[in-house]
Amino acid sequence: MGAGRVAMTPSLKDRFFTTRKLTVDLAGPLSDADATVQSMPDASPAKWHLAHVTWFLESFILRDHVAGYHAFDDSFAYLFNSYYETEGARHSRAARGLITRPSLARILDYRTHVEAAIDAHWNILPEAALRLIELGIHHEQQHQELLLTDILHLFSQNPTFPAYWPEPAVRPVSGAPCNTMSWIAGPDGLLEIGHNGSGFAFDCEGPRHEIFLQPFALSSRTVSNGEWMQFMNDNGYGEPRHWLSDGWSWVQCDGVTAPLYWQQDKDGQWLTFGLDGLRGVDLNAPVTHISLYEADAYASWAGARLPTEAEWEVVAASHPFDGGNQLDKAGPVRPKSSDDGTLFGNVWQWTGSAYRPYPGFRAAEGAVGEYNGKFMSGQFVLRGGSCATPRGHVRASYRNFFYPHQRWQFTGLRLAKDA
Amino acid sequence: MGAGRVAMTPSLKDRFFTTRKLTVDLAGPLSDADATVQSMPDASPAKWHLAHVTWFLESFILRDHVAGYHAFDDSFAYLFNSYYETEGARHSRAARGLITRPSLARILDYRTHVEAAIDAHWNILPEAALRLIELGIHHEQQHQELLLTDILHLFSQNPTFPAYWPEPAVRPVSGAPCNTMSWIAGPDGLLEIGHNGSGFAFDCEGPRHEIFLQPFALSSRTVSNGEWMQFMNDNGYGEPRHWLSDGWSWVQCDGVTAPLYWQQDKDGQWLTFGLDGLRGVDLNAPVTHISLYEADAYASWAGARLPTEAEWEVVAASHPFDGGNQLDKAGPVRPKSSDDGTLFGNVWQWTGSAYRPYPGFRAAEGAVGEYNGKFMSGQFVLRGGSCATPRGHVRASYRNFFYPHQRWQFTGLRLAKDA
Amino acid sequence: MGAGRVAMTPSLKDRFFTTRKLTVDLAGPLSDADATVQSMPDASPAKWHLAHVTWFLESFILRDHVAGYHAFDDSFAYLFNSYYETEGARHSRAARGLITRPSLARILDYRTHVEAAIDAHWNILPEAALRLIELGIHHEQQHQELLLTDILHLFSQNPTFPAYWPEPAVRPVSGAPCNTMSWIAGPDGLLEIGHNGSGFAFDCEGPRHEIFLQPFALSSRTVSNGEWMQFMNDNGYGEPRHWLSDGWSWVQCDGVTAPLYWQQDKDGQWLTFGLDGLRGVDLNAPVTHISLYEADAYASWAGARLPTEAEWEVVAASHPFDGGNQLDKAGPVRPKSSDDGTLFGNVWQWTGSAYRPYPGFRAAEGAVGEYNGKFMSGQFVLRGGSCATPRGHVRASYRNFFYPHQRWQFTGLRLAKDA
Amino acid sequence: MGAGRVAMTPSLKDRFFTTRKLTVDLAGPLSDADATVQSMPDASPAKWHLAHVTWFLESFILRDHVAGYHAFDDSFAYLFNSYYETEGARHSRAARGLITRPSLARILDYRTHVEAAIDAHWNILPEAALRLIELGIHHEQQHQELLLTDILHLFSQNPTFPAYWPEPAVRPVSGAPCNTMSWIAGPDGLLEIGHNGSGFAFDCEGPRHEIFLQPFALSSRTVSNGEWMQFMNDNGYGEPRHWLSDGWSWVQCDGVTAPLYWQQDKDGQWLTFGLDGLRGVDLNAPVTHISLYEADAYASWAGARLPTEAEWEVVAASHPFDGGNQLDKAGPVRPKSSDDGTLFGNVWQWTGSAYRPYPGFRAAEGAVGEYNGKFMSGQFVLRGGSCATPRGHVRASYRNFFYPHQRWQFTGLRLAKDA
Repeated sequence: MGAGRVAMTPSLKDRFFTTRKLTVDLAGPLSDADATVQSMPDASPAKWHLAHVTWFLESFILRDHVAGYHAFDDSFAYLFNSYYETEGARHSRAARGLITRPSLARILDYRTHVEAAIDAHWNILPEAALRLIELGIHHEQQHQELLLTDILHLFSQNPTFPAYWPEPAVRPVSGAPCNTMSWIAGPDGLLEIGHNGSGFAFDCEGPRHEIFLQPFALSSRTVSNGEWMQFMNDNGYGEPRHWLSDGWSWVQCDGVTAPLYWQQDKDGQWLTFGLDGLRGVDLNAPVTHISLYEADAYASWAGARLPTEAEWEVVAASHPFDGGNQLDKAGPVRPKSSDDGTLFGNVWQWTGSAYRPYPGFRAAEGAVGEYNGKFMSGQFVLRGGSCATPRGHVRASYRNFFYPHQRWQFTGLRLAKDA
Repeated sequence: MGAGRVAMTPSLKDRFFTTRKLTVDLAGPLSDADATVQSMPDASPAKWHLAHVTWFLESFILRDHVAGYHAFDDSFAYLFNSYYETEGARHSRAARGLITRPSLARILDYRTHVEAAIDAHWNILPEAALRLIELGIHHEQQHQELLLTDILHLFSQNPTFPAYWPEPAVRPVSGAPCNTMSWIAGPDGLLEIGHNGSGFAFDCEGPRHEIFLQPFALSSRTVSNGEWMQFMNDNGYGEPRHWLSDGWSWVQCDGVTAPLYWQQDKDGQWLTFGLDGLRGVDLNAPVTHISLYEADAYASWAGARLPTEAEWEVVAASHPFDGGNQLDKAGPVRPKSSDDGTLFGNVWQWTGSAYRPYPGFRAAEGAVGEYNGKFMSGQFVLRGGSCATPRGHVRASYRNFFYPHQRWQFTGLRLAKDA
Repeated sequence: MGAGRVAMTPSLKDRFFTTRKLTVDLAGPLSDADATVQSMPDASPAKWHLAHVTWFLESFILRDHVAGYHAFDDSFAYLFNSYYETEGARHSRAARGLITRPSLARILDYRTHVEAAIDAHWNILPEAALRLIELGIHHEQQHQELLLTDILHLFSQNPTFPAYWPEPAVRPVSGAPCNTMSWIAGPDGLLEIGHNGSGFAFDCEGPRHEIFLQPFALSSRTVSNGEWMQFMNDNGYGEPRHWLSDGWSWVQCDGVTAPLYWQQDKDGQWLTFGLDGLRGVDLNAPVTHISLYEADAYASWAGARLPTEAEWEVVAASHPFDGGNQLDKAGPVRPKSSDDGTLFGNVWQWTGSAYRPYPGFRAAEGAVGEYNGKFMSGQFVLRGGSCATPRGHVRASYRNFFYPHQRWQFTGLRLAKDA
Repeated sequence: MGAGRVAMTPSLKDRFFTTRKLTVDLAGPLSDADATVQSMPDASPAKWHLAHVTWFLESFILRDHVAGYHAFDDSFAYLFNSYYETEGARHSRAARGLITRPSLARILDYRTHVEAAIDAHWNILPEAALRLIELGIHHEQQHQELLLTDILHLFSQNPTFPAYWPEPAVRPVSGAPCNTMSWIAGPDGLLEIGHNGSGFAFDCEGPRHEIFLQPFALSSRTVSNGEWMQFMNDNGYGEPRHWLSDGWSWVQCDGVTAPLYWQQDKDGQWLTFGLDGLRGVDLNAPVTHISLYEADAYASWAGARLPTEAEWEVVAASHPFDGGNQLDKAGPVRPKSSDDGTLFGNVWQWTGSAYRPYPGFRAAEGAVGEYNGKFMSGQFVLRGGSCATPRGHVRASYRNFFYPHQRWQFTGLRLAKDA
């Protein structure tokens, strides 16, 4: 193997500044107004994302580990803390969109200021701070994805349907037909899941532990828009027996008849709104922006079920987790038809597993320890990352989680069945 | 072993009519008004319980299996169906309390009528109908417990705090001190849980399947009111780090500072309202009427955790499930201090397990199949039965389930820890 | 004039006991459950009406004016006070329907007890107490009407649509065709309205004062169901330009398409639910159960307007206020076609006047003074009484008032126009 | 009278362009984000105000009266229509704050474009269009005031309390002590109110008509902050007998204890937030940002009452309506102590009159006719203009109106009493 093929792992410092730059690149098309408005309580303003991840670094690196550091602005701790109760009072989540000042420009200055301070003190940062830098990278990657999905939601509320990253209007609807769905048998019996402790992982991914699986198979790819239309045409949204009881209430109450961001034009053709604007539904692309309730109902209708997170993980363990359609740079992101031999990318895959602690789980101490454990009720696990997930962020053991009605992320489904 | 020790299992018919009679006995103190009012959407009027279980029998036994049977009243199918979508339109759950007519007396006539018809046709009922009779018994037992807890909730809303079953006011506060809490090591490794198919069980209790458990221990008894007061006195309801995030929102939003039905008298003494009226809190009795959020916060405060349902079941498998403080007859029910060597009775025990299907679970076909599977999102499993659970109803494999904020059942907690 | 023609005014005592008896007669068909349930926050349980008017007498007559009187039940002051802030804490209005105990029977005992006490002490009651007896009669008459309209609302929520006072099913739809609507010119210029102080009136009816009116005319009768159907058929509920802005929001938000209690049978025929059950709409009867918003929209559609309360009163002053279709005894009440030369009875007539104080108005002192003045915002005045108003209760100066969206009273409209 | 004293009335064209320029000046300190966010459903984004008044001109002047005019942007009719049902579908009011694009810069371009087109066609505009120009000026003046009060509300939601127009921090709290309140007797008997048709007025100000007034007096000035503090210190917000019933519910439900924008610093000193930032309460300035409920409760506490709009108008008719503290140019606005012999300016004065049509009122035909009549339910009339009302906008006959709980305008009160 020639020297040119040696893949040098980028240094922590390189990865840190690369990640910071990507965030700003993703925010490139934002106006001050775009960056300020909050379109629903679940979403946050882009400005808040840009500032919050910076506040995280300023607090846990600079304030805690750099003697004499002075906060860039004393009001920011109040404005940009997210949910760290131990870090003191904070601005109400639902009111984040009312903060028109500081401006986007000032938040970008804040980012520059904190980056410069970290750069200047890099060599004196203790090991504990470097571990928090690593955590800060992954934390920021999560907010990169949220920034995109929150902007998508905001723009979807604008009757003019602006494109965040416009593309040529005549883009062909689909690059490639999707393959026939087949079934991949997974391993069964006594197995292990959970992160093994080598490399970065969030606390909720461990401890690694034994589980026992019955024989099962996963579908070779995620469900496509074309298949979803069959479900719709078969009255899938109107037939209560497919649905969980809470899901049926949600469908009735919210008048749900299609995935989020779908709409019909005056000829009845289905369009979907994305970061590249309003376009025809690509039948071969994976269905996305569906809730757990919809995923479960589809699986029920299809005579299958959702995989458990353990089933998903034992299959994914042999897949390249940095493959597939993930986020590499600022620019249009969308799920696309693919059969690239990986379970990763394109759309997050709802599992049938509630997000609960693994045996032996202990939350980390201190403010950072509030990170995951406290969200372990009412939510379901999603696996695999999406087209909006920064490449390198997910792993086989990675556990994402949302409430079963939420669907503004790039969420889809892969089927499972008993073998 | 002498003949006297032979425990004759009562016949299905005996059990059926005994169960039917117990329901009416439990309803004995109800006035027409008591039986009609719905105190919250989660609860149902007693009249509805009395009628609904009867409608279940009338529909699935008499209508489906007795040729020529005519419905007692054609409007009852609409009024007293609960959630069986396949059985057609039904009255809105939240509006059940507006049905002042038919009266309680007419519902009691309805019960008598259906019982007489079943009695008259008992000998010609096919095997499938007899299996539904068995299901009907267990179904009615569930509603017996709900009838009591719903009445308790209703009476708790009355500023005069009426006692459903008054008792002498000078009843001593507690019969027996509770024992010191110790830890019972459970079995670990590759084990089986789930119902083994012998005798009656609800569909969600199976299939029996293998699981793998890490070493653990359960507390020898449930947490007492005295211990709960220590949690309260240590600012347990005011310290966010003990709480799940959803739980903390619930505490803040609803202003929760004590278990449901607790109140302080003018001297600051804690009282609790039960079916026997308003009385001083018995420090030695198990704490009850707590939500999953409260149970989880207490466990966190105590440096322990909630057991998983598998941990609970593998320990309970060796316990007599018809022992403990369970419901035998109409009359005051309350949790009481006990150490009778069983995990059953007194209070339902919240587990840390989300209510989800076991591997290989399939919902039964038809209307009866709507029974359990569709509730498998958002709820947590409780185990063990309570003082209001008819004796004979629960088993080691029995899975009760409620939303994490609900606490009008007799719900408590048993601690667990990693061994 | 012969002796037989001498109309003896009944004594205060006679009127008092007659009024008390009528209330019990009106409640005659109520079951304990009927009397207990509250169908919406605007309505009160019948039991509450029966008890509240009695609490009024017990408090302001017996407690305040009869030395040594002991309350029938100490909890009743808390349970049955309505809105008298100065009388201390009271049960939440929206939770009135949760009070299953005391029973209806006990409330009837309460009524008997208080009546007996008043009877026993009648001769020693001071003048102030007798004036409160007079007020108590009128107060009870108001609650008689509310008792009927609240029961009607409750029964309308029952899918079986029970009739409170059943009548022969073959009752002809209408007794008499209504007359052609004509216009009655009213007096104009400098006039007086308001109660002149002779005989009983509520404080809000005075002081009598001068007003100046432009020339106007009132329609000779109220708008009929047949005319209302023309409005409906002309898309009256779908055309925003007829509606007040708040009214249009109300129509959109609540999906209003017809008067309250109207429904279509499977053949599209309009039925209306009343105290005599579900019957075909009588085209000749006055439209009723409409909101101010609907009344105003109809008038706008018809090229007319609502009368002001002053216009109504100066015309009504010459009409016999105890004529027309008003309540005489327990039994079916319904608006009916009539042209009996009076502006009174059948349906309350919405005016275009906001309910505000007359010049020089002062609320009475003390608890009784809370009676009317504090409701003087957001409500509109209605005039004339209805088929459910006890005969003798209303006067030309009588001001009833409800919020513009409310329509569970027997509310209709009379048109006005500038002359 | 010398030539120098001849007050030349500015031409319509001058007034039009002066008004247009003032709007842009008022918006001068706005960032794109400031101009976009909507802080509550009652308020609108500044960008919306800037665009809406321009859409009004573009539609009713250019589209309707200039042949060949093409809309600046076809989406603007949907985005910036306010409530004109006859003008077609429009964007939901509560979602106005989600429109991050078009940007503020583009809206300013829109303004320039429309102004240029009007300028270019001025000489060919027909009389009907010029009348609409006049209406457009007054319409824009209304939105100038709303722009300021909506921005004030938005900034009040920002925990950093930014000042829109910062002023020196050491500004003295008050320029002048307020005078002792005295009483001005008004005229009584048969009088006229309403606009007399000479010069511009909104439709709701007429027709002029006769009314009859009892003797009364108005307070010589509005209630001051110092007097309001006496009300607060006398438990004014805690004593139900002062309050209208709806007002008391509002106080309880919203936890109201002071005027809007008042807060206490850590030493208990009262501060108030204004367009010049957070400052100490000026005891001599008129109280402002109070609801009708508060105004009415204060009057009740003070043994007085609110004036009717007729009483206010007959007194104001002899006052110079362009005097007092009104808006002349962009820059800090605040109510200040004054006794300048006019009833106008400083704070809008709540009257006790519901906003209802005058005798003979007819709404204008067409879209413009939707202007006032449809808001005539549930609101109260305010008179006199405020420090944020453009000078020249109000008149003696001017009727402003808001719901009784609203208080984000500069609202205060003047007392009245029977003479």
